[in-house]
Formats: sequence, structure tokens, C-alpha cells
Amino acid sequence: MFCAGVREMSEIRQLSSSDADFQSRLDALLAWESVSDRAVNDTVNNIIAEIRSRGDAALVEFTSRFDGWQAASAADLELPLSRLEQAWNTIPAEQRQALEIAANRVRAYAEHQITDSWSYTEPDGTLLGQQVTPLDRAGLYVPGGKAAYPSSVLMNAIPAKVAGVSELIMVVPTPGGELNELVLAAAHVSGVDRVFLVGGAQAVAALAYGTESVPPVDKVVGPGNIYVATAKRAVFGQVGIDMVAGPSEILIICDGNTDPDWIAMDLFSQAEHDEDAQSILICPDAGFIEQVQASIDRLLPSMERREIIATALRVRGALITVKDMQEAVDVANFIAPEHLELSLENPEAMAKQIRHAGAIFMGRYTAEAMGDYCAGPNHVLPTSRTARFSSPLGVYDFQKRSSLIMASPQGAASMAETASVLARGEGLTAHARSAEYRGKS
Amino acid sequence: MFCAGVREMSEIRQLSSSDADFQSRLDALLAWESVSDRAVNDTVNNIIAEIRSRGDAALVEFTSRFDGWQAASAADLELPLSRLEQAWNTIPAEQRQALEIAANRVRAYAEHQITDSWSYTEPDGTLLGQQVTPLDRAGLYVPGGKAAYPSSVLMNAIPAKVAGVSELIMVVPTPGGELNELVLAAAHVSGVDRVFLVGGAQAVAALAYGTESVPPVDKVVGPGNIYVATAKRAVFGQVGIDMVAGPSEILIICDGNTDPDWIAMDLFSQAEHDEDAQSILICPDAGFIEQVQASIDRLLPSMERREIIATALRVRGALITVKDMQEAVDVANFIAPEHLELSLENPEAMAKQIRHAGAIFMGRYTAEAMGDYCAGPNHVLPTSRTARFSSPLGVYDFQKRSSLIMASPQGAASMAETASVLARGEGLTAHARSAEYRGKS
Repeated sequence: MFCAGVREMSEIRQLSSSDADFQSRLDALLAWESVSDRAVNDTVNNIIAEIRSRGDAALVEFTSRFDGWQAASAADLELPLSRLEQAWNTIPAEQRQALEIAANRVRAYAEHQITDSWSYTEPDGTLLGQQVTPLDRAGLYVPGGKAAYPSSVLMNAIPAKVAGVSELIMVVPTPGGELNELVLAAAHVSGVDRVFLVGGAQAVAALAYGTESVPPVDKVVGPGNIYVATAKRAVFGQVGIDMVAGPSEILIICDGNTDPDWIAMDLFSQAEHDEDAQSILICPDAGFIEQVQASIDRLLPSMERREIIATALRVRGALITVKDMQEAVDVANFIAPEHLELSLENPEAMAKQIRHAGAIFMGRYTAEAMGDYCAGPNHVLPTSRTARFSSPLGVYDFQKRSSLIMASPQGAASMAETASVLARGEGLTAHARSAEYRGKS
Repeated sequence: MFCAGVREMSEIRQLSSSDADFQSRLDALLAWESVSDRAVNDTVNNIIAEIRSRGDAALVEFTSRFDGWQAASAADLELPLSRLEQAWNTIPAEQRQALEIAANRVRAYAEHQITDSWSYTEPDGTLLGQQVTPLDRAGLYVPGGKAAYPSSVLMNAIPAKVAGVSELIMVVPTPGGELNELVLAAAHVSGVDRVFLVGGAQAVAALAYGTESVPPVDKVVGPGNIYVATAKRAVFGQVGIDMVAGPSEILIICDGNTDPDWIAMDLFSQAEHDEDAQSILICPDAGFIEQVQASIDRLLPSMERREIIATALRVRGALITVKDMQEAVDVANFIAPEHLELSLENPEAMAKQIRHAGAIFMGRYTAEAMGDYCAGPNHVLPTSRTARFSSPLGVYDFQKRSSLIMASPQGAASMAETASVLARGEGLTAHARSAEYRGKS
């Protein structure tokens, strides 16, 4: 009975690329549409309208209603930086050291992403280029309660500070007024400039439009629940936003020669995030797939978050047998996974064939979990096949560009001719005449 | 009477930064919210649903209903590339040459924007980096009818091809079946790979989800009306999109020593786009502002698009007197304009103080109109103050990044320690154990 129970618990679908219905089953497996229903949209739009019209007063009221604590005044919504430093000084030394190592590695990697201004001068003296500048002010949403992850603070805050954002404002709800010491310590080591104890759509609205206390920012980043995600979509345009993330995913391509326990645990590490998380293994060796299945069966009962893992594996997981490694690459490029582990010999050769993936973890020693915390690259990554067109969060998300054009008199005369012909071709004669004025001189 | 009529026609508000209500009047001047009402949203959502469920059949029907021509079959929706070449060969030589010069300059500038992959190896042998790849397939929306601009084809298509997008698909509606030869010629010289004669929300839906004839793309770019913009917002997530643009804007900072006719014409060149376009001049010299006002009065009656220009200047234009050039910079940074002209001595020094602008046109010879057609930098630029957080369209919009991580055994052992402490701090023990496996070896 116990064994049967375990077997049932560790249910995960097995697919083979040689199945006639493989592509349609793969499509069904990957299907994900996050839906904000009309009720959520209406609630969020109402909250945004209240914050825009009543500012701090509405922010205090929503915080009382949704987070269950009453601020005596709007000033109480801000946490002084000294409180972050206090958290940093009082967490266990082991955690402080780990946060510091992680922050340093994330910062060192981010520094490689800085884009510099550039320009060139043409033979006639005309200068063309691009000036790169940081955002003035960014807002970082940090979820409260169970899903409060200090690592997310590092990953969102450090690229912003490396980009040169002068004011980084963190918002974090404190349900029941409870603070998370690790989150505060992470904010301290990341260089967060101001912290407000607010959350939900009201926090996003306050960051986007500003209130008497909360200054308006230029971009809002960071994960959140459906209300936060819906609010971010709604304020997009007023401010920039990062991507709206779907459930986390891992795709592992294995040649069949990695310890199957390692692979099983890597699948678990993604599945333990939540019931919608997706863990997929691709391998050309059907025998190895069975070994991983056995590891799953054996290890799952010992996992602290086994209920979540079991649900995620059953609902969205898969072990896929393919013909060969080339087919594995093709399937991976179709899936465009958030996390891709290449657990095999010579991962560098295969990585060059990967066209779409948020992050590529190469070789048997590179557990995806290392990337979540401390390898250096960002753990905010495109999900749900959006790696086809988007990138990890990075310094470039906190910088923007301005084109530079300085025409020499000679260059202007030459460009005026071309611009005039094309502008007249489009019927825009003020454009043409404006250019022609410069050509005449 | 004639004079009075002209004066009235060229009405444009004058503001001074010393006015007590200057900031609130500036806020009102800049206010812009593009609103897709519920009716537009419902129409668009219905069109998207029809395209997703019925594909080509729906696409043919919508094209008949909205564009007024009936395709005999879905195959008729595609225009062969030979037709683009025919347009190229039959337009006037002067236009062909202008398109070629413009395309070459846009391409040369875009080539400076290519981002390369990079990596570095740490002392313990761990490799970190970022692999940069092009999108597989991009879709380019080109409006039909009056607003069909060949220059937009160059500006959207060329960065995609420079990025290495292997298949660039253009959609363009042909109201009444009428083709625009300049648009087709521009598509030819830009290297567009396939053209479909569809438009509206149905074209955006077809690009996002694919039909039997139209292959699904990874990103949709290009301007369009409110239905196109609403459809782009709706499919965002399924595919990437470029920004949703507001009305075009120009902000000119002048030291008072440029020919006032030039400045008036530059203001016109933006205002002639449409009635919502915004033209603003900032100058510390009140006398020069009066000179520009006189130029406006004198030149406006001779403009082909004077009705549109007059409306735009009256509704959204302004001539602003400021205390000094430093204040001009501060106001410009607040406005974060799409186009910023620095019509003054030593524009380079001032450009370094500009934190937010889509494009900066430096010096008296650099008419903004040159940037619209042929200077090289893109004319697709952030509008409505979004230059605070976004950038001109560029090659980087058609590339994406994948993080690379390859841990050496020694590096893995060290990262495993840090990851384990942080993962356990977050209660994610599968993450911890997955990292610890690698540390043990």
C-alpha cells in the first residue's frame, strides 16, 4: 500500500518523439495563458483610480484592508534605511556571508552588461551615435508573506544600481505588519534607496503615479500575484515594466550519463516553486528515463515540499524520449525554456545550437539552483516560450538610449536632398522644406 | 480681415517659466492618454478569437469587410516578391536613388548596434556569459492608405535584417485593393521576405498566432491605428511587440540665433503629421519667440497641410520663454521628448546634460526631418514622455540574450555552499539539495 501510494504520488507523464501525436501532446503540455478575468481587472482599475485621485489616504486605507495593519499616518508606510542595516547586522552570520557572496557575484556579472554611449563621424563631418543613460528612478516590487525571496531582491535591485539608477524604491507588503529580516538584509546589501511597506495593485499604482509620500518612478520591476501583474499591465506606458512572468520552468537535456538522482532533484527544484511549475527531461536513452523515474519515486517522499512537487510533476511535468541529441536540440528550441540544463559532455557545442532559452546551464556540475542564487546571471528570466523574443533581466533594462545626430553643413546639404525627395513622396512638405532650408546654405 | 484670419489660424500658446502656474500648465499641455474603449477592445478580442479558431477563412472575410476587396482564395493574400522588385524598377529614378541612399545610411548606423555574445572565465574555471541570438521571425505592420510611409518600412525592416532575423514578414492593408508603389519599393530595398495584403487587428492576430498561410512570428512591430495598437497590446506575451506610440512630438531648444523661419518650419514639420502632434519651442529670448511667432504667421498660409498644422499648434503647441539655458535643459528633461532639437552653439555640451530624449538633433543644420528619412538613426522613437524608460527601435529589439553558466567542479563546490544557505533560508530545500549534490563531488 505504501509503495503504491508513493508510485501514485510521483506520477509524471512519459512521451516519446516517435509518438504519432507527439507534437499535439507537447503543445498541450506547454499551453499556458495567464488570464486576468474581468473581476480582477475591475478591482485593479478601481484601486489605481483611487490611488491617482486620493494618494496617500487611499494607500493607507488599502494597506489596512488588504494587509491587515493600520498605519497611524502615511509617514509610517516608509521604513527607515537604518532598519535595513539593523536586519543586516542581526541575521545569522552564515546568511549574511551568503548574501554578500551572492550580491558580489551578481554585481560582477551585471557590470559586464553595461552599455556605453558611442558615436562615429562621417567623412563630411556629420556625427552619429547613441547616448546611453540610466533611468532616474526605478520601483522594485517584492512580494510579502510566503513568497518573499531575498534572492529576488538581489536579482532585481543590483542591475538597477549597476546601471546607475539614482533612486531605487522598494515596496513590500507586510501582511499583519510582519517584516521579513532576510528580505530587508538583501535590500541593504543591494543598495535599495527607500522602502515602503505597501503591496498589491495599490503599491504598483503608487509607484507609477506617485502619492504625497511615494515618488513616481520610471519603471516598475519585480514579481507578484495576479493583482500585481494586472496592475503592471495597466500602468504600462505611464511607466516601463519588466515582463509579466508565468510559472517557472526547467528543461533538462541529458545524455544519460549524469547521476539520475541529480536529474530528479533538478526536476524537483523547479517543481517545488508551485503547482504550476514545469519540469521536463529530454533524453535519447529510454533506460535512463526509467532510472530517473526510479529516483523520483525514491526521493520524492523525503522532500519537504513533496505535495507541491508531486502536483507540479503530475500536471505539467514530462519525461521525453527522443531519437538523438539533435532532436533534443530541436525540441528545446521549440520549447524555448526559461531554464535549460545541458547535462552532458561537451555542452558548449550544443549551447551554440540553442536559439531560444532564458539561461543555459552547461555541464553536469551546473545545477540550475546555483543560477537562482549566486552564479551571477539574473534569475529573472523569460517564461512560457517568451525566450523566443525576450531576455533575462539585466542592466540594459535600467538604461535607455537617445540617438545623436549632428549634421555638418556639408552633410546637411546632402541629407536635405534625400529627405526632400522622400518627404515629398509621402506628401509631407513641411518636412521637405525644413530639410531644404539647411541645404540652401 | 485676411490678416486677422491668418493670425487666428496660427494661434499657439505662449508660456513663461516664471508664470506661477507654469508647471500645471505644462502638465496639462503634455497630458496624453490613449484610450481603447470597451467597444474597441471587444471588437479586437472578437477578431483575434476568429483568426485563432478559423485562420485563413476569417482572414479573407475580415479583409473583404474592412478593406473592401475579395480575395479569391487565401493564396491571393500573399504578394509575390517579384511584385516588390517590379515596383522598385518602375518608380522614378530620383525616388529609387533616395530610397537607396536612405536604406544604406539606416543600415550603416544599425550595424553599430549589433550586440555580440560575451563570456568570461573565473579563476576556478567557471564560465559565465551571455549568448546573443536573433529572433527567428518578425512581423512588420505597415499602415495602408494615407498614412502609408515608405520611410517606416525602412526604419522597421532594416534593423530586423541587420540583427539576423531570418524571416521578416510584412503585412499591409490595401483598401480597395490599391497598392502603394513606394511602400513596395521600400520593402524590396529593405530585404522583406514575405508580404501579405492584410491589415487591422486581423493582420496582427494572424502574425501572432499564425494561420494556414501566414506563419506565426515572434515579434510584431510597426505603427497602426487604434485597432492595430489594441490588438498589439492584446497579443503581447504570445509575441513580443514594440512600443505603442502616441502622437509625434518635437521640442526645440534655441539660443535665439537660428533663422526664425527655420525654427517655424521645424515646428510645422512635426505638426503636419496629425492634429494631435505636439510642437514646442523653448528659448530664453522673448524677442526671438516673437520673431518665430511672426515666421509662423507668415509661413503657415503657404503650407500644403496648413489646416492640420494650425490645429496641432493651437491644441498642443507652445512657445515657452525660460530664464536661461540651464532651465531649458531642466524643462526638456521633464518633458522627455521624442525629438529634441538643440539649435544653438556648442550643442554637444548641452546634449551631455540631456537625460531623456528619443533622439537629439544637434546644431542649427540638423533638421529633425533629416532624421525621419535618411540620417541613419531610427525614426521609431519613444513618445509621450516614455523616453524616461525606453529607447529608439534598434537592432537590439530583434536580438535576445541567453545567460550562459558552466561551473567547474571547484566552482560548483563553492557555489553549492552559498546556494544551499540561501535556498534553505527561503524554505526551498529541493533547490538546496540539488546544489549540494554538486558540492559533494
